[in-house]
Amino acid sequence: MIDPIVLKGFRDSLPGEEIPKKNIERKLEEVFESFGFVPIDTPVLEYESVLLGKGGGETDKQIFHFEDNGGRKVAMRFDLTVPFARFLALHHAELPIPFKRYHIAKAWRGENPQKGRYREFIQCDFDLVGVDNAEADFEILSLMYASFNALKIDNLKFHVANRALFNEFLETIEVQDKSIEILRTVDKLRKIGEEEVRRLLLEITADENKSNKIVSFITCGENKDFISTVDAIVSLIGGETENSLRMRKIYSYLKETGIEKYYVYDPSITRGLDYYTGIVYETFLSDYESIGSVCSGGRYNNLASLYTKEVLPGVGASIGLDRLLAALTELKSPLVKDTRSADILILYKPQEEDIAIKCAFALRMKGLKTDLYLLPQKKAKAQYEYAERLSIPYALTFKDGNFQIKNLSTREMEETSSLDKVVELCR
Amino acid sequence: MIDPIVLKGFRDSLPGEEIPKKNIERKLEEVFESFGFVPIDTPVLEYESVLLGKGGGETDKQIFHFEDNGGRKVAMRFDLTVPFARFLALHHAELPIPFKRYHIAKAWRGENPQKGRYREFIQCDFDLVGVDNAEADFEILSLMYASFNALKIDNLKFHVANRALFNEFLETIEVQDKSIEILRTVDKLRKIGEEEVRRLLLEITADENKSNKIVSFITCGENKDFISTVDAIVSLIGGETENSLRMRKIYSYLKETGIEKYYVYDPSITRGLDYYTGIVYETFLSDYESIGSVCSGGRYNNLASLYTKEVLPGVGASIGLDRLLAALTELKSPLVKDTRSADILILYKPQEEDIAIKCAFALRMKGLKTDLYLLPQKKAKAQYEYAERLSIPYALTFKDGNFQIKNLSTREMEETSSLDKVVELCR
Repeated sequence: MIDPIVLKGFRDSLPGEEIPKKNIERKLEEVFESFGFVPIDTPVLEYESVLLGKGGGETDKQIFHFEDNGGRKVAMRFDLTVPFARFLALHHAELPIPFKRYHIAKAWRGENPQKGRYREFIQCDFDLVGVDNAEADFEILSLMYASFNALKIDNLKFHVANRALFNEFLETIEVQDKSIEILRTVDKLRKIGEEEVRRLLLEITADENKSNKIVSFITCGENKDFISTVDAIVSLIGGETENSLRMRKIYSYLKETGIEKYYVYDPSITRGLDYYTGIVYETFLSDYESIGSVCSGGRYNNLASLYTKEVLPGVGASIGLDRLLAALTELKSPLVKDTRSADILILYKPQEEDIAIKCAFALRMKGLKTDLYLLPQKKAKAQYEYAERLSIPYALTFKDGNFQIKNLSTREMEETSSLDKVVELCR
Repeated sequence: MIDPIVLKGFRDSLPGEEIPKKNIERKLEEVFESFGFVPIDTPVLEYESVLLGKGGGETDKQIFHFEDNGGRKVAMRFDLTVPFARFLALHHAELPIPFKRYHIAKAWRGENPQKGRYREFIQCDFDLVGVDNAEADFEILSLMYASFNALKIDNLKFHVANRALFNEFLETIEVQDKSIEILRTVDKLRKIGEEEVRRLLLEITADENKSNKIVSFITCGENKDFISTVDAIVSLIGGETENSLRMRKIYSYLKETGIEKYYVYDPSITRGLDYYTGIVYETFLSDYESIGSVCSGGRYNNLASLYTKEVLPGVGASIGLDRLLAALTELKSPLVKDTRSADILILYKPQEEDIAIKCAFALRMKGLKTDLYLLPQKKAKAQYEYAERLSIPYALTFKDGNFQIKNLSTREMEETSSLDKVVELCR
């Protein structure tokens, strides 16, 4: 006998989890498509060299990689961004530009599992490629809002900043040569706190005045509204720039569409990764901040440069579905409780097979989600327990050629001879 | 610069392919759910020992397997059936029984690519576990019909047979000890033809009379209707059995639901695999038979026996989505031509950004699939080409505070000041 276990960090998804997950994915797809974003797909396996690129980082150790039967060094994708960059390099001439794509798919990392974090996880990415302006940035920001709005998550904040403005500030205080280390340190603010960041910045800059200035910069949005924060940044930089003007423009769009209250300017948001060049953002659920950002991203103006000379500016974001699901479960969202498998369950007695099968087929062809309980010899108790486990709200039985419909929560009964009436009752 | 290529046998899916693929998957999911089937998911990676089971077959060589960073021997799933058996063994106590599940997901095999066959492919599996009767068999048969019906594929035949009846026949002529080799040979009938099968059967049985009898059996359905074929089989077996009666019962359900014309009894269908114990089937598109079966499966009464002592009888089928898509493309199905990305494209002039963004946001919130062309400085020609490439049927422009809606195929124009009117026009 083989032990039917799964690998550490991997999980089966039972219907009670998979039904809500699918509902959420469908809602997200609907929103992405309402913005004119189109789906693509890429292979799970790629050449290791393609996925690792310059490589050498943390990712390398965590990646699932091996030699295939043909002696090729291959790896399973660890995110959807790198394959998308490769995809753009290979196909940009065939794609409509601007190109707006979404991709909901699994990725794999061998990291140690923790709450809402697994070795196999689902990413929902959406990106807009080929345009570098405020309208494109706003497309992604408003799509983030629309996504969470469709999931009925209202109590959240999008923390927005601008990497280019941060770099301009670093130039002002003449530490731009250390920008990568500085932004990686600043990125840890939420985790390690202000004083530890200050200490690390001092190590990097070896200048107390400068490290204090950086801390002032990244905290200059505290208790300020969006525009006042932009004003504060402008004064720290020493004047208005193209990038500060773009942030003002983006804010004007947020206001015009009436969604500005969901956005805060948070200069401490830098995103650890090198490739961001403009706006960046993270998303925090106000009722469960500790789980971390559930949707992050930003502008990159040269994502595919590893694979092509074509310059492809883009802006995008990514929702971590597993973390979002963990949060929704913790917050007892109605979305994760909706595990109904069917609208109606047909229960029949032995000898009623023929009418039961005919009735099930007819209701299904009318589009009603109809389950047929196939063990008529079982006791009524078992039959109703089955309906309850699958959250099926109605039961149908047969009586004198009529259909009896029972509402399983109110116990109310109705009798009819019309299948259309059944559909109407149960929808 | 890294060459942005994909591995041999793997493919990117561009929007022109991915949009129809998603549409088809959604239609199938809708049908599965209308039958009360629920989704599950399992990990892409499993212990190699779990996936290979007894192993030793063709599959072993084709599987993608490796040692992970923790020294575990792991493999990527090569179908959805084996993980489902493992899933059942692990979770049967938590599942509602009868358990009806579907699973649409990728699997991987290192075999040599050919038309409609890739190293990464999508399976759509649906199974019903916990019941061994004619009604359960019919659930799957009718779900197969409903699936293809939803895809508007009418010109097809489900070839049905019964493995148990075949075994009873082999007992009658006393060759049951060679049943596995015989059924594997018979399974090749479509590929190698009747005379080659006869020759191979003679090699196996070393008895010309017996091998001729087997050929008579597997061809006894030619030019006969379903019930006449059952009659012929009964006479070859020497009498009615439980299994022949079950096939008659199943046929009576097909007739009662009015779908009998899609089903033929084809005694040559055996399915190569050991685990089938009752009804088996394959599906052929009448306009493209050469691509092979697009939906196959059958009854297995002990699928999870490798992992558990619990006896879990089941019946199910699997649609190979890539082969189906290749067929639909070849047959120029309207389904694969529907690549529309949005209902309407908003075109604006520089300086109209504000109204364009407001209008796009409002239409999207009303659920209309709205794309916003973000490069207003481009020539009109480029803007309309973009709409054409994405099959967007309407364009919206602004004039004196009104919306001008242009039907891009008829060139008809309408002007309105109401967004609801826009939605109504374009839906």
